[in-house]
Amino acid sequence: MSTVHREATGLRGALSAVRSAPIADDSELDEIFARALLGSVAEPGDGLLGRAIDVIGAVAAASLLLDAASPAVFVDVLTRAGGSIDPREAESGLDRWSPRLDQGAFTRALEQAARVGARLVLPGDAAWPDGVDELGIHAPLGLWVRGRESALGSSASISLVGARAATGYGEHVTMEASAGLVDRGFTIVSGGAYGIDGMAHRSALASEGTTVAFLAGGVDRFYPMGHETLLARIVATGAVVSELPCGAAPTKWRFLQRNRLIAAASEGTVVLEAGFRSGSLNTAGHAAALGRPLGAVPGPVTSPASAGCHRLLREYDAVCVTDAEQMAELVGGARRRAPSGDRAVPDPASDDRGAFGMASSPDAVRVLDALSTRSPRDVADLARRCGMTPSSVMGVLGGLEAVAEVTRHPLGWLRVKRG
Amino acid sequence: MSTVHREATGLRGALSAVRSAPIADDSELDEIFARALLGSVAEPGDGLLGRAIDVIGAVAAASLLLDAASPAVFVDVLTRAGGSIDPREAESGLDRWSPRLDQGAFTRALEQAARVGARLVLPGDAAWPDGVDELGIHAPLGLWVRGRESALGSSASISLVGARAATGYGEHVTMEASAGLVDRGFTIVSGGAYGIDGMAHRSALASEGTTVAFLAGGVDRFYPMGHETLLARIVATGAVVSELPCGAAPTKWRFLQRNRLIAAASEGTVVLEAGFRSGSLNTAGHAAALGRPLGAVPGPVTSPASAGCHRLLREYDAVCVTDAEQMAELVGGARRRAPSGDRAVPDPASDDRGAFGMASSPDAVRVLDALSTRSPRDVADLARRCGMTPSSVMGVLGGLEAVAEVTRHPLGWLRVKRG
Repeated sequence: MSTVHREATGLRGALSAVRSAPIADDSELDEIFARALLGSVAEPGDGLLGRAIDVIGAVAAASLLLDAASPAVFVDVLTRAGGSIDPREAESGLDRWSPRLDQGAFTRALEQAARVGARLVLPGDAAWPDGVDELGIHAPLGLWVRGRESALGSSASISLVGARAATGYGEHVTMEASAGLVDRGFTIVSGGAYGIDGMAHRSALASEGTTVAFLAGGVDRFYPMGHETLLARIVATGAVVSELPCGAAPTKWRFLQRNRLIAAASEGTVVLEAGFRSGSLNTAGHAAALGRPLGAVPGPVTSPASAGCHRLLREYDAVCVTDAEQMAELVGGARRRAPSGDRAVPDPASDDRGAFGMASSPDAVRVLDALSTRSPRDVADLARRCGMTPSSVMGVLGGLEAVAEVTRHPLGWLRVKRG
Repeated sequence: MSTVHREATGLRGALSAVRSAPIADDSELDEIFARALLGSVAEPGDGLLGRAIDVIGAVAAASLLLDAASPAVFVDVLTRAGGSIDPREAESGLDRWSPRLDQGAFTRALEQAARVGARLVLPGDAAWPDGVDELGIHAPLGLWVRGRESALGSSASISLVGARAATGYGEHVTMEASAGLVDRGFTIVSGGAYGIDGMAHRSALASEGTTVAFLAGGVDRFYPMGHETLLARIVATGAVVSELPCGAAPTKWRFLQRNRLIAAASEGTVVLEAGFRSGSLNTAGHAAALGRPLGAVPGPVTSPASAGCHRLLREYDAVCVTDAEQMAELVGGARRRAPSGDRAVPDPASDDRGAFGMASSPDAVRVLDALSTRSPRDVADLARRCGMTPSSVMGVLGGLEAVAEVTRHPLGWLRVKRG
């Protein structure tokens, strides 16, 4: 009996509790366990893990991890299954996943999920949003859902996203747009944040429509706190979703990765109001990279809250949309269009100069997330927290030290306080 | 001695008075006379006359007209010179130009031009704006200029146009844009109208920049009346320009043709505020048809005064521009780009459904211009007024009668009063 199956059997009850349908057989049980487990050790969008699952499946990948396979074995298994992997990559992957294997924490996260009524939706389930599969090796391993699972798989869906620091103008336009799209049968997808996101959800609820909120942390803790009531209302008729297990904290890296799900799970994305460096531009970048229709609502050029929208219109070939009808047309008129070859479509993953909301390189974001300004942390601790190898963390720390973002301390590293 | 030369010699004094440099020789004298004369009998942009001039030159074309050449002779002369022309086209051309030959009126217009200090600038002159030659057979025959002729030939120029019914927002943005472009060395081209145009000129003057206003009627009569002081100030440092002779009234047709000059005489066009069917969209259409950079300033989607700008962004691939720097970049970054093949570029001449400011077909606009709501006019009178053949006028009147735009009267035709 494989390690995976033994562990899965031990958690059969806990795993059954987070699935909406009875578990059919042992192979399904193992698959559920493997995906839940891998989702708890890897950061969202881990491409190496995605490739491994593509080649050998989630169960075999989890097996290697649980059996503490050496990098050589990992490489060997993948190569024999037809994959290709660099030994250093394999070592790096195992080094960042292994320290996070913690059976106690995993079991507690499953129990917490059951307690809040969260279900794990997996590829192949009726409710699985097919659009996220287009993320390829960066697709989520599973999605934790509170509310109506079917809300997630809606065929007609559109993301309405924008700045937290929205203006009255932006909120007004969002309210009208969301209500108008609900009238046209669309599910409204957004990020549950203050400002535009919140208004998009609220207006959809007020119009008795379906709305889905993607969170950057576990669905057991509603974030932001001020939206606890709103998110609870969304659960009642729509869905609150995350690829992270219960208990996971929303880090900046996870917000950026969450944005890829918003873009991928909906047919098209509209940015309603966004500052010049707003995080919503990151969502827009993901939509563009996926070749999904991207719209931007213009506003006064004198309003900094519209500067990001104008940037999308000007630099990224976003379509100018001014009302719900045009937003519906955006999605209906250009379903799954090929990525535009006309102007350069930003690659959110490679963009490290802040154009799409990233202050620095993806790895730097993750290390900075893991650092504290008050408690010094050593490299091993940081590596575990951010899900990277100790040597990668060291490399990043060196770079961050050079630009005075981090500082050494007798007990480890500190993030330098700003402003 | 040709008729043209005899007539030109008789007007040598009057023609010298409207030229900035002494007339070099008889052939130049004839050319000046011929272009001034043809410009007084044909409506702006008359393509048949443009073709005739391309093939046989302005002097020969004027000769045929003055000698009352038959259509057969007209066809023969053009054909022998390598042109090709349909006999019915020739007849139609002669029929619309001949009734307007009026030596007394022509002389009075020249005297009036001299009186107000207007000069006739012709192709080949240093001040001639080369950009208008790209209008091909629709290029102006000459330009009447009050002010500094050299302002007209500025190499760095940009058109700032927009709605008469501008908002405070639109005027504010226009003021900033115009001043910022003057700071960057641009000449500001516009149409002298109320609203955006006026603000563009005013702000350029306030920044001690150069600005050029293209009028739809003769430069002896400033239109609109309320801009008499503004236009006089433009004359002092820039130029007020028209292709129509002194005394010519600004008709709707001429406004639309004037718009092609604004687009053609500048390197690029920016629409700052425009209603959904604003006349500035006509200027934008000309700019796009000429392959010139076209920019649009976004505004609140809740403002009808920005709806035309959003339409340009959405449907016509205009570039979103939010400040002077981006406008300067628009022109500098895309000098004389080829007409976009990406989205359909509107052809202002063929668009008769109002998208670019034309309420009906070009001919209908001209006939409606020539009609009065109170004084009935017969077909011959209308044909002379609008520069079309009597039979074309009859055809158009039939169509307009069918849609109740015109009505028959014992003494001729009346335009039906609206609103």
